Amino acid sequence: MSELTLTQIAREAKNASLVLARLSSDIKDAALEKMAQALESNIARILEANEKDLEFSRKENLPQALIARLALNESKVKGMAAGIRSVATLPDPVGNEQMVMEMDKGLVLRRVSCPLGVIGAIFESRPDAVPQISSLCLKSGNAVILKGGSEAQNSNKQIVSLLSEAIGNVPGVPASAVQMIETRSEVADMLQQDKFISLIVPRGSNAFVRYIQENTKIPVLGHSEGVCHAYIAEDADEEKAVALALDSKLQYPAACNAMETLLIDEKSASRVLPRLVGEFKAKNVELVGCARTREICPEIKAAEESDWDTEYTDAKLSIKVVNGLQAGIDHINRHGSGHTDLIVTEDPEQAERFMSEVDSASVMWNASTRFADGFRYGLGAEIGISTNKTHARGPVGLEGLVIYKYKLFGQGQTVAEYSGENGKSFQHKSLPVKRAD
Amino acid sequence: MSELTLTQIAREAKNASLVLARLSSDIKDAALEKMAQALESNIARILEANEKDLEFSRKENLPQALIARLALNESKVKGMAAGIRSVATLPDPVGNEQMVMEMDKGLVLRRVSCPLGVIGAIFESRPDAVPQISSLCLKSGNAVILKGGSEAQNSNKQIVSLLSEAIGNVPGVPASAVQMIETRSEVADMLQQDKFISLIVPRGSNAFVRYIQENTKIPVLGHSEGVCHAYIAEDADEEKAVALALDSKLQYPAACNAMETLLIDEKSASRVLPRLVGEFKAKNVELVGCARTREICPEIKAAEESDWDTEYTDAKLSIKVVNGLQAGIDHINRHGSGHTDLIVTEDPEQAERFMSEVDSASVMWNASTRFADGFRYGLGAEIGISTNKTHARGPVGLEGLVIYKYKLFGQGQTVAEYSGENGKSFQHKSLPVKRAD
Repeated sequence: MSELTLTQIAREAKNASLVLARLSSDIKDAALEKMAQALESNIARILEANEKDLEFSRKENLPQALIARLALNESKVKGMAAGIRSVATLPDPVGNEQMVMEMDKGLVLRRVSCPLGVIGAIFESRPDAVPQISSLCLKSGNAVILKGGSEAQNSNKQIVSLLSEAIGNVPGVPASAVQMIETRSEVADMLQQDKFISLIVPRGSNAFVRYIQENTKIPVLGHSEGVCHAYIAEDADEEKAVALALDSKLQYPAACNAMETLLIDEKSASRVLPRLVGEFKAKNVELVGCARTREICPEIKAAEESDWDTEYTDAKLSIKVVNGLQAGIDHINRHGSGHTDLIVTEDPEQAERFMSEVDSASVMWNASTRFADGFRYGLGAEIGISTNKTHARGPVGLEGLVIYKYKLFGQGQTVAEYSGENGKSFQHKSLPVKRAD
Repeated sequence: MSELTLTQIAREAKNASLVLARLSSDIKDAALEKMAQALESNIARILEANEKDLEFSRKENLPQALIARLALNESKVKGMAAGIRSVATLPDPVGNEQMVMEMDKGLVLRRVSCPLGVIGAIFESRPDAVPQISSLCLKSGNAVILKGGSEAQNSNKQIVSLLSEAIGNVPGVPASAVQMIETRSEVADMLQQDKFISLIVPRGSNAFVRYIQENTKIPVLGHSEGVCHAYIAEDADEEKAVALALDSKLQYPAACNAMETLLIDEKSASRVLPRLVGEFKAKNVELVGCARTREICPEIKAAEESDWDTEYTDAKLSIKVVNGLQAGIDHINRHGSGHTDLIVTEDPEQAERFMSEVDSASVMWNASTRFADGFRYGLGAEIGISTNKTHARGPVGLEGLVIYKYKLFGQGQTVAEYSGENGKSFQHKSLPVKRAD
């Protein structure tokens, strides 16, 4: 495929997207089923390609964790097929009426959801991202151009080729709905294709996502940081505070929604902090704290100013004593990344203020920051988590891959008829929308 | 104000936005009323400042049309106040529940609309843009940094100073909700403030909007072109075709939603084209056409290839004969700007196909392209028209200035409880949303 220029690939994808946009849910779901079958019927070929990637990775002495994520087996491939089938069961996000406005008798405006067009998906290593992203894009009527990690190149290439062939065998569905590029220079070229590509979805390290964001004019759905906080209020229930702080930090410390900084109200600090610190130390969490934290727990190392802006993604936590709710909110809005923040309190008023005033995608009241996730939220799928303020924010499901268009149904009306002193008036009567079956 | 650095101005705006985000509708509407009163009570001062701008513009021999747009009088200032009051009557776009998901008993997720934060609004000349944009931003809980045309600098400065003072006099509302910058170098600085500014709204010429889009990483709500089409189908009603083509081209040729290219099915061309051409010529519209158009109407000049991509914004039209619906759709998707396109047909199937497959923000069936407008659509206000594929598309009302956040209401739940073999299961029960009053 790499013999085509990026502009050709992107134009192909755009053309495919125009066809995908008008497919019925049934045809899209049939194509998804064919994709699942293609993987199941070709496990040996996929594992063979994967073996090449593994050999190369071992030869290059790549980290064990990376090799583990890269390695496929029969059960993992079957899992990919199951994942595709579960996307087929999701409601179609395309064609939903969002508003109906009778502008006048016989002049009716309908706002209807539709695909974005072409998605550029760039991810590091794991080959299971290929069927997952491809199926979400197909379900939402978008064409996709994929770029995976170079360590997984053979696996990805084999999977994309199977998926594309399977799709192309369904009458009316273009094989170029799913395409793949392989080199870094092609990524650089892809980021220039703002004429054809509507959204870039990057998955990978913070530095990787930041690089993407800084090198394209195309909107990027992603987050480059997750500096998440828990604020323990004056009246916090001690048991909840301990359980939520431990879960938010430790349930999976490498996740973007894990807590990095614990803020504690000065009035609850002496009551709750010693126990919290003891619990974290028992779990081998490295702690750094502000001066007031160290007055209460002198064994903690001093935090640097930069700690308040750092995502450790590891068993490390910074702790700060603050003068009440407002100081906590201010700290979060200043140092946070707008991702996910938690208040532990029994007071609904403080909780409501925190949830209104903290400017983050997810704000939790007495619930772990780790709940901020598309599947846990019940969105059915997760395209990614976004810290953008436009389009889609927080955990993003399929609806992050659609936009809408306005369809105006008239009978020959002109604007001139509605203009001037004797012009007709608009009625602007909002009508009920047709609900999806 | 220009003594502050742009970073200071932007940080001020961000801080103001955090306060604005939590204001009740009543307080925001009270502030809007104060803004309206401040303009009404200071008409003399506003006209005095405006006179300085007019003097300067006359001295510089600026175009008459520009001077006319710049000139204020008592009735125009009263119109500004009335415009602010009409924004106050719009429904508050903030605080609307968009979804409620019971993840489990006692663990409820609510998605609620909230402001974007800080808007950067850049516009050319007209001083009435100042109260309009300021009021829309305030109503939606956003802080705004305004930059108007330098010809209107004295008028804008006077108006902003009155608005900001009026807002600041309402308890709890920060005066820095509305700020203004004055120089081009400040605009360049503002476009760098992606840490503080969530959206740039430019209003002006195509070249101006394109400049903005190409010089910032901040999302831009706007359109740099409106290459709009009408496609006259084989079966089109001749009277409708003529009325709609004339209105789409001539009702206001300088508008972005005016038609630039007329596409006509080869089977209706000999029937409809001579009359259409005659009507356009009677209205002094300059016509250029493809070879087949010129076979039927030899008096028309030949179109250049570049004509199909040109927005004339003037009494000029390009005409092309196409081989049926698909060719018409293909031409539009290739040469159009995704703005507004029209089909004239009596056949619902052709209409539906056109409206699904033309990849534009507004698709019209037997209704003028000129209807593509926030007020005509009944959105209550128009921030601008967007040809973006993300966030907001087509005519954008107040909801283009909001996004949402997720609020999770728990009772101490951890993710660990929901993990592993014996973990609890999510219920994911969708609950009805609370409707705004």
